[in-house]
Amino acid sequence: MTTHQLPPVCILGLGLIGGSLMRDLHARGERVYGFTLHSARGARREGFDVSNSVEEVLRRAEDERALVVVAVPMRAAAGVLDQVAEYAPSCWVTDVVSVKQPVYDLIVERGMEARYVGGHPMAGTEFSGWTASQEGLFAGAAWAVTYDYAREHPDDASWAELFTTVCRLASVVGAEAVPVSVGRHDEAVARVSHLPHVIAEALALVGDRGGTLAQSLSAGSFRGATRVASTAPELVQNMCETNAESLVPVLDEYIARLQSARDALAATPPSMQELAESGHRAHLRMAARKGARRESVSPVKISSRPVMRVHPGAAGWVTQLTQIESLGGRVEVF
Amino acid sequence: MTTHQLPPVCILGLGLIGGSLMRDLHARGERVYGFTLHSARGARREGFDVSNSVEEVLRRAEDERALVVVAVPMRAAAGVLDQVAEYAPSCWVTDVVSVKQPVYDLIVERGMEARYVGGHPMAGTEFSGWTASQEGLFAGAAWAVTYDYAREHPDDASWAELFTTVCRLASVVGAEAVPVSVGRHDEAVARVSHLPHVIAEALALVGDRGGTLAQSLSAGSFRGATRVASTAPELVQNMCETNAESLVPVLDEYIARLQSARDALAATPPSMQELAESGHRAHLRMAARKGARRESVSPVKISSRPVMRVHPGAAGWVTQLTQIESLGGRVEVF
Repeated sequence: MTTHQLPPVCILGLGLIGGSLMRDLHARGERVYGFTLHSARGARREGFDVSNSVEEVLRRAEDERALVVVAVPMRAAAGVLDQVAEYAPSCWVTDVVSVKQPVYDLIVERGMEARYVGGHPMAGTEFSGWTASQEGLFAGAAWAVTYDYAREHPDDASWAELFTTVCRLASVVGAEAVPVSVGRHDEAVARVSHLPHVIAEALALVGDRGGTLAQSLSAGSFRGATRVASTAPELVQNMCETNAESLVPVLDEYIARLQSARDALAATPPSMQELAESGHRAHLRMAARKGARRESVSPVKISSRPVMRVHPGAAGWVTQLTQIESLGGRVEVF
Repeated sequence: MTTHQLPPVCILGLGLIGGSLMRDLHARGERVYGFTLHSARGARREGFDVSNSVEEVLRRAEDERALVVVAVPMRAAAGVLDQVAEYAPSCWVTDVVSVKQPVYDLIVERGMEARYVGGHPMAGTEFSGWTASQEGLFAGAAWAVTYDYAREHPDDASWAELFTTVCRLASVVGAEAVPVSVGRHDEAVARVSHLPHVIAEALALVGDRGGTLAQSLSAGSFRGATRVASTAPELVQNMCETNAESLVPVLDEYIARLQSARDALAATPPSMQELAESGHRAHLRMAARKGARRESVSPVKISSRPVMRVHPGAAGWVTQLTQIESLGGRVEVF
C-alpha cells in the first residue's frame, strides 16, 4: 500500500508550470490528473492521466475531494474558476498564476475565499507549453503561498488544513513555501520578475538597433539580460498587464535610477561612480542573503531561507506567518 | 624546434583579460611574458614569466621585437603608453581595453598610429584580477580589431603585417577577429555591453529596495539580468565613463523605450503588447543571426559569423574590411 502525502491533485492547464507539476507529482507517486485543451493526446502517450474535458476532470475532482490547481494564464482564470464553481463546488482550490491580487479578486467575486489558498512557484524557463515542462523544475525554488484569508479567520480549521496541504504540495516537488500576503507578493514580483522581463524586451530592441555588428560583438552580459525575452510575448504581456498596478511605480523607480545615471554620465566630467558603487553594494546584499544555498558544495542543497515551524490553526500562527513573510522565510508545517 | 605563430608577446597588466591571454598563449607554446604590479609573485609561482618592473619587460620587448599588449584599465592607459613610447619605441602595440576612441586619442597624441592596432576581446566574467584569469576564456568570442589607420594608409605594408599579427593573436586563443572602426565599435559595445552593466546595477538597487522578501522570491530572470553587477564597481565605472559619449544617447534610447512601455501600462486598460511583441521579434532576430553556433551539437563549434578571407595590404583590402564590419563578420587573414 502506498502512502500519499497529498489528496488527489487535479491540475487545470498543463503548460510549463502545470505540466512540470504533473511530472513531479507523478514521479513521486502522488495521485495526479489534469485537463489541457491542446496537449492531452501527447501527455497521455507519455503515460499521464489527462483529459481535454474540463467538466469531466472537475466532476471527478469533486468526487475524490481533490485539490484543484488552476494553472492557466491569468486571462483564462475567470472562466476556469466559473467551471470550478459549477462542477467542483466543494473542492479546495489553489493556483500558480504569476499575480495574486487579480486572482484573489476573482475568488472573492465567487465567494470562494474559504476554500482557496493562492500560490506562485518562482520557477520557470524562457520556454512554454507542455513540451517545455520538465521534472525537477521547482527544486529549491520559492513557492509563494498567500494567507490573507487567515488574517480575518485565524480559527478556520478547514482553511488551515488547506494551507497545510498547499505548503506540502510545494514541499513534495522540492520547493520551499514562502508565506506572503497578496499585496506584498505582487509588489515583490514586480521588482524581481516582471521588471526583468520589461528590461529584457527593451534591451533586445536597443541591441537589435545596433545591427549585425552589435549582435556579433554581444557576449555574456547581453545574453544574460535578454534571455527571458524569448518567453512567448503573450505570457509577458499577460503577466505585466495584470500586475500593472504594482509594476508602474516600480518602473518609475527604475527609470528614475537610469535617468540620474544618464545625467551623471552626460556631465563634465562624466561620472558613473554613484550607480556603480550603490548598485554593486545592493547586489552584494542580495547575494549575501542567499549565500549558503549557492556556495554549498554538498550535494544536499542547504536553503538560505530562514525556516520557521508553524502549526496552522494554532494560537498566534498568523502572526508567525507575518514574521516569516518579512524575512522572506520558508514555512515548515507540522 | 617549435614553430611559433606569433612574435614574442609582452602583456602589460595581468588582470582577468591580460592574465587569461597569458595562460592561453603559454598553453599553446607561444613566447609570452608580462608585467603586473601586484600579482607577479603568484604568477611566477605558477610558472609564468612575469615581472613587476614595466621598464624591464618593455626593454626586453624592444630587444625581441615583441608585440606589446596593453591590458590595463583605461585610466592607466596613458601612463603605460608613455612608458611604451620611452622603453619600446619600435614595438608593435595593441590593447584589450573595452573602449577604443579614448585609447586611439592617446595613440594619436603620441604619434603611435603606424604601429598600433586596437583590440577588444568580447569575453569576460563578473570577476576580475589575475586570480580570476583562466584558460579558454576567449574560445568562440569576437575579438574586435580596429582598422581606422588603414583607411588613410592602405598601402602601409608594415601596418598590414601588424594587423595580420593581431588577427592571428585572436585566432591562436580561439577567438574570431571582427574588423571594426573605432567609432562603430564604441557605439556597438555601448548597446550590448555597457548598457547591460548600467541595467544590472539599477536593477540590483530596485530589487534590493524590495527587501528580503523580494530577494527570497527572485529567480532566474533577476539573476540573469543582475549577474554582471558583481563586477568590480571601479571597472564598470571606468568603462562607462570612458565611453560616455556613445553610452548617453544609447541610454536615452533605452529610457525612451521604458517610458513608453510605462505609459502604456499606466493606461486604461494597461497594455504591454507593443513592447512584448517588438522586443520578442528583436530577440528572435538577434538569436537567428547567431543561430548555427548555439544550436550545433557537434563538438566542433561552428561559428555563425560570416567569414571573409582577406590578404592585408592587397588591393581593395580596406573595402573588404568595411564590408565585413557591416556584417559583423570575422576576417581570416592569409
